[in-house]
Amino acid sequence: MAAIESRIAARLLAPGDRLPSIRRFAATMGVSPSTVVEAYDRLAAEGLIRARRGSGFYVAATGQPPLKLADAETPKARAVDPFWVSRQSLDADDTVPKPGCGWLPADWMPNEAMRRAMRALARGNETVLSYYGSTRGSPALRRLLHARLVEEGIDAAPEQVMLTGSGTQALDLICRLLLNPGDTVLIDDPCYFNFQALLKAHRVKVVGVPYTPVGPDTARFETVLAAERPRLYITNSALHNPTGATLSPPVAHRLLNAATRHDLIIVEDDIFADFEPEPSIRLAALDGLSRVIRIGSFSKTLSASVRCGYIAARTDWIEGLVDLQIATNFGGPSPVSAELIAHMLAGGGYRKHMEELRLRLVRARRDTTTRLHDLGIEPWLQPRGGFYLWCRLPEGTDSAELAQTAVARNVVLAPGNVFSPSQTASAFMRFNVAHMADPRIHAALKAGTSHA
Amino acid sequence: MAAIESRIAARLLAPGDRLPSIRRFAATMGVSPSTVVEAYDRLAAEGLIRARRGSGFYVAATGQPPLKLADAETPKARAVDPFWVSRQSLDADDTVPKPGCGWLPADWMPNEAMRRAMRALARGNETVLSYYGSTRGSPALRRLLHARLVEEGIDAAPEQVMLTGSGTQALDLICRLLLNPGDTVLIDDPCYFNFQALLKAHRVKVVGVPYTPVGPDTARFETVLAAERPRLYITNSALHNPTGATLSPPVAHRLLNAATRHDLIIVEDDIFADFEPEPSIRLAALDGLSRVIRIGSFSKTLSASVRCGYIAARTDWIEGLVDLQIATNFGGPSPVSAELIAHMLAGGGYRKHMEELRLRLVRARRDTTTRLHDLGIEPWLQPRGGFYLWCRLPEGTDSAELAQTAVARNVVLAPGNVFSPSQTASAFMRFNVAHMADPRIHAALKAGTSHA
Repeated sequence: MAAIESRIAARLLAPGDRLPSIRRFAATMGVSPSTVVEAYDRLAAEGLIRARRGSGFYVAATGQPPLKLADAETPKARAVDPFWVSRQSLDADDTVPKPGCGWLPADWMPNEAMRRAMRALARGNETVLSYYGSTRGSPALRRLLHARLVEEGIDAAPEQVMLTGSGTQALDLICRLLLNPGDTVLIDDPCYFNFQALLKAHRVKVVGVPYTPVGPDTARFETVLAAERPRLYITNSALHNPTGATLSPPVAHRLLNAATRHDLIIVEDDIFADFEPEPSIRLAALDGLSRVIRIGSFSKTLSASVRCGYIAARTDWIEGLVDLQIATNFGGPSPVSAELIAHMLAGGGYRKHMEELRLRLVRARRDTTTRLHDLGIEPWLQPRGGFYLWCRLPEGTDSAELAQTAVARNVVLAPGNVFSPSQTASAFMRFNVAHMADPRIHAALKAGTSHA
Repeated sequence: MAAIESRIAARLLAPGDRLPSIRRFAATMGVSPSTVVEAYDRLAAEGLIRARRGSGFYVAATGQPPLKLADAETPKARAVDPFWVSRQSLDADDTVPKPGCGWLPADWMPNEAMRRAMRALARGNETVLSYYGSTRGSPALRRLLHARLVEEGIDAAPEQVMLTGSGTQALDLICRLLLNPGDTVLIDDPCYFNFQALLKAHRVKVVGVPYTPVGPDTARFETVLAAERPRLYITNSALHNPTGATLSPPVAHRLLNAATRHDLIIVEDDIFADFEPEPSIRLAALDGLSRVIRIGSFSKTLSASVRCGYIAARTDWIEGLVDLQIATNFGGPSPVSAELIAHMLAGGGYRKHMEELRLRLVRARRDTTTRLHDLGIEPWLQPRGGFYLWCRLPEGTDSAELAQTAVARNVVLAPGNVFSPSQTASAFMRFNVAHMADPRIHAALKAGTSHA
């Protein structure tokens, strides 16, 4: 059974292919024909192969394993992997505390501004309410995004900006444009867990580079570039997820030189940028959108419900991405979503909202640090902004085990190894400081750490 | 140059690989070293390869051609292919008549219902306004969709329905789950043009089966299944795009039997279903969602701006699709979009809106038929519903040429061959009857047909 299964998995036997005859396969394997009959019958019962009367056994198409990204069929039986965290965070009901989630509480978001934007749109043009919109997406929102690039000193044309269904979809389209199965992609270790899930769907090889408090370890970065010749590097320069670290200018300069030398393309995911107290250095600005691609979204700052992301890149790549977005989504985000975002970004209210959020997060980081300290849990560094604290657990505590015991108490955590391509972060946990006030979290952490 | 280019395209030379030395390559090709030097220099100027001082030439990574779906770089220089129609329809401004487009005019859509739904949402729960939502999408909308399946006699569980960012994205996720590069996929000839664009992005082999007024040619269907062993068949059973034909019960029965015999999976895109005067037969209902997957969206009936699609399928496939949607989009459609759709579907207004649309379309089909008849343009059949007329042009008129001359006059048409995998529909044109009233269309058709 295993011999046939592995050949099907490796696609040495494709759907519709005839299996070896019972007699021949028995001889090959050195077993009796009745053993082969039994194995074939069991494989047929499992739906992997099918018998055709009088003509032997064939590989079934519906039995061919579909692309499998996660380890188990049922969410509950799953290992603690990136999908585990995503599904727990997204599907647990709203009363469950989720310090492992990647968004702010609903009552921290600019809901009044959203309601106003909606009412304005409800009075607006019926074209926006009913048509697909243009291939690059809402001109109003793209103008705002282009102005921001210019502010950063990036000399881009307005046509170099396109909207996407989400920040994740932006990255997905870029991977579809630039990667072939089997290519190598570089990511930070640790990095945002869904990068790994996404790259798995692209069937590429993933290599991690250790992340330091000032960016990726440059020596390792250069070694990996020379040895593995990755095609793409995906990173957050501002308030790196999960560490909260910020890329330093000398590291940025060295990364970009290495990228140029080895012809590496860089995707800079700017999703947390507006949480910085002061703008830090950006690869896209240094490079001027030549080999760096900028992506971002508004899910962390305005609304994760009104989904919309964007890409700023070389014009020829944008043309290819527009075609890909037509082919795979027949256009970009909901024009309604893009207009809502544009409406919320356009006024002076956005700057004020972000100032309030930043202040609130300073307090939340401080309070969380104190609370965690009492449990022997210490931040790896104090971030300049944002809502994550990347923390080391007390000696002897495994973060995946802690996450499992916490979920049994209805608390969703984000354990270290889901962020780590090398699986070397079992002693770490990412906490979302905006979700830490619920006393059930403290209780779950206390019960699950070795301190208890 | 061609020898190196083709090796790079075939990935026999990967990014970073060293090219053969000038002396060695000259010997291999039987040319002088100076010829090779010139070829290498030109390839370097094109960015395909790079010189490293003192160590020869290497394949450039950024020079590696990205996935190219369309024929030319600039939209204007493009051949009349599926992307040409999509881009022209989506990007031409609203004053341009677009009888080639695939949606209804804005003032035919239920804009007042949409405005009401928006105002209701603007008063609603802040959770819906700001969170990502659950992995399968809005429970309210999924309940409505599940009830419709039950009405069709499909005994599905509520968990077998998931929402997606669009109907196209639904199909894209299914292809990602079930296809491997190099697999064979069956489509109708003619079929919705974007199916071909999408399948190109999946790098699969596409085989077309001639479509008849009662469905695909069953004899050819069976022959192709035996000869090509396709993994997937994608079709519209109700009001087939572009022909407007409807699948007949005996053809449906025969298709499904052949699919079972050859282990073929079928995707039934139900996007035009609500335009039928009476429901016709459905493969998903015959089969009970065993090997048939149902997809659909609301872009044709409610709004193309509020994007939302859905999938109904086997539970194990849905689990895989949910993971894929997390990996590639971190969840489904905007919860805001899904709630707007649910709001508009829930009341009695939807049934009334569709009744009005159907009546309006009966008149538009009749008027268009008369107008086109005057130009010697005749429908291939009179559809039972929907907004397409698939028409034969006067003898000697090439539809791609007609579309090019029309676009020069600011009229966007959808010429036959963009729908035809075998490129055998140059004498046909798809007309959207809801967009045919503008006199500029008649003038452009008159100028471009052989009649003129």
